[in-house]
Amino acid sequence: MEIDLRKKCNSSSTETAAKLKLYSYFRSSCAWRVRIALEYKGLPYDVIPIQLMRKEQFQSDFVKLNPMAQVPALIVEEKVTLLQSLAIIEYLDDVYPNVPLLPKDPLLRAKVREISELIASGIQPLQNLRTLHKHSDDPNEKLRWAQFWIHNGLQALEKTLTECSGVYCVGNDITMADCCLVPQVANAYRFKVDTSGFPVIARIEKMLSEEPAFQRAHASNQPDCPPELYSKL
Amino acid sequence: MEIDLRKKCNSSSTETAAKLKLYSYFRSSCAWRVRIALEYKGLPYDVIPIQLMRKEQFQSDFVKLNPMAQVPALIVEEKVTLLQSLAIIEYLDDVYPNVPLLPKDPLLRAKVREISELIASGIQPLQNLRTLHKHSDDPNEKLRWAQFWIHNGLQALEKTLTECSGVYCVGNDITMADCCLVPQVANAYRFKVDTSGFPVIARIEKMLSEEPAFQRAHASNQPDCPPELYSKL
Repeated sequence: MEIDLRKKCNSSSTETAAKLKLYSYFRSSCAWRVRIALEYKGLPYDVIPIQLMRKEQFQSDFVKLNPMAQVPALIVEEKVTLLQSLAIIEYLDDVYPNVPLLPKDPLLRAKVREISELIASGIQPLQNLRTLHKHSDDPNEKLRWAQFWIHNGLQALEKTLTECSGVYCVGNDITMADCCLVPQVANAYRFKVDTSGFPVIARIEKMLSEEPAFQRAHASNQPDCPPELYSKL
Repeated sequence: MEIDLRKKCNSSSTETAAKLKLYSYFRSSCAWRVRIALEYKGLPYDVIPIQLMRKEQFQSDFVKLNPMAQVPALIVEEKVTLLQSLAIIEYLDDVYPNVPLLPKDPLLRAKVREISELIASGIQPLQNLRTLHKHSDDPNEKLRWAQFWIHNGLQALEKTLTECSGVYCVGNDITMADCCLVPQVANAYRFKVDTSGFPVIARIEKMLSEEPAFQRAHASNQPDCPPELYSKL
């Protein structure tokens, strides 16, 4: 049964050492989460940029890979496409557990997943560009909408982190939650959200920004980042 | 360190046999996902209804439990609050693995999580009531918005399931993806989405609707479901 399904998913039945390929866009917070995970785990990968501004995600070749027309998409075992950022990070943690992004304790794992999902379901979908464009043609209204949802989510996140953070989001080890935090905070800055009420988030984000893996994964360090934006991200 | 964190999360360091308590709302698709998981795993739990229409989720006692002011919230080990539906289901699978909701094969696990996340991040946040109210005061525009996002997501889901479904979403075993599918299809019906183009989704949903666990978890079987809605859900 499992072998049949792997065939249906176009997978080989044994893992190969093929290099991972990541369809990414420098400013996509979802692709950014996966880049952090790959960098933190020290996994080599090639980036294939998808220019969201040029609507490359809607081209038929890419929609065949991801019917949701979104980045990230990660190619593993040469030809299997993995989609959805948290599902991809969990896969990487299942297959490459040496540098873990989830704690062993079930309650702490739940907390890491809760924070990740708060961001991935509770904030990001409401402020991504497609949602903004669908909501309004008025740039001011788009900004108000994005600011409302990001502030709403970060306010809840601040309370959660006040309970359960250590040096990082959950305790003193970097986890999947931290992979989600950094790109979401970048979006808060991009949309000029008032983050003054979130000192715990700011403290953790500052610590993470000093980590080499997080620096390598940063939007401004991506091959598809236009030079004029380097200093603005 | 872990013990400190468990203290910070108000947890005891050993698991107790305390009955699980689920803060739920009969029609919340996120709470519904968790009800299915609990019923499918045969775990006894008490339901504490939160009347979203009466805005009980914004009352201070509940916001202390969940700063996002959303259901579900699951109380485990007597006093630890778990939030976010997929994080809760993953916790239940970690702690009660006897009736699994995730396959063992990493690629199949990734597929289950991808489908779950497609629904939990790619559809539900965009069509939930708070988002609808924020988007527009016009009932027709609210309906158009909900229909657009649900149709968009189910269209992608149909393609994914065409590749990887068996009897259920991923192969022939019920998984977390199925816990997500049923409540999302119910929302599609509720918002009168044209689902005629999604035969695979319809086939799987029909199979699942015959499962006793799914029947027990159904919105119409909840203690807070008003009798006049029994036949309409």
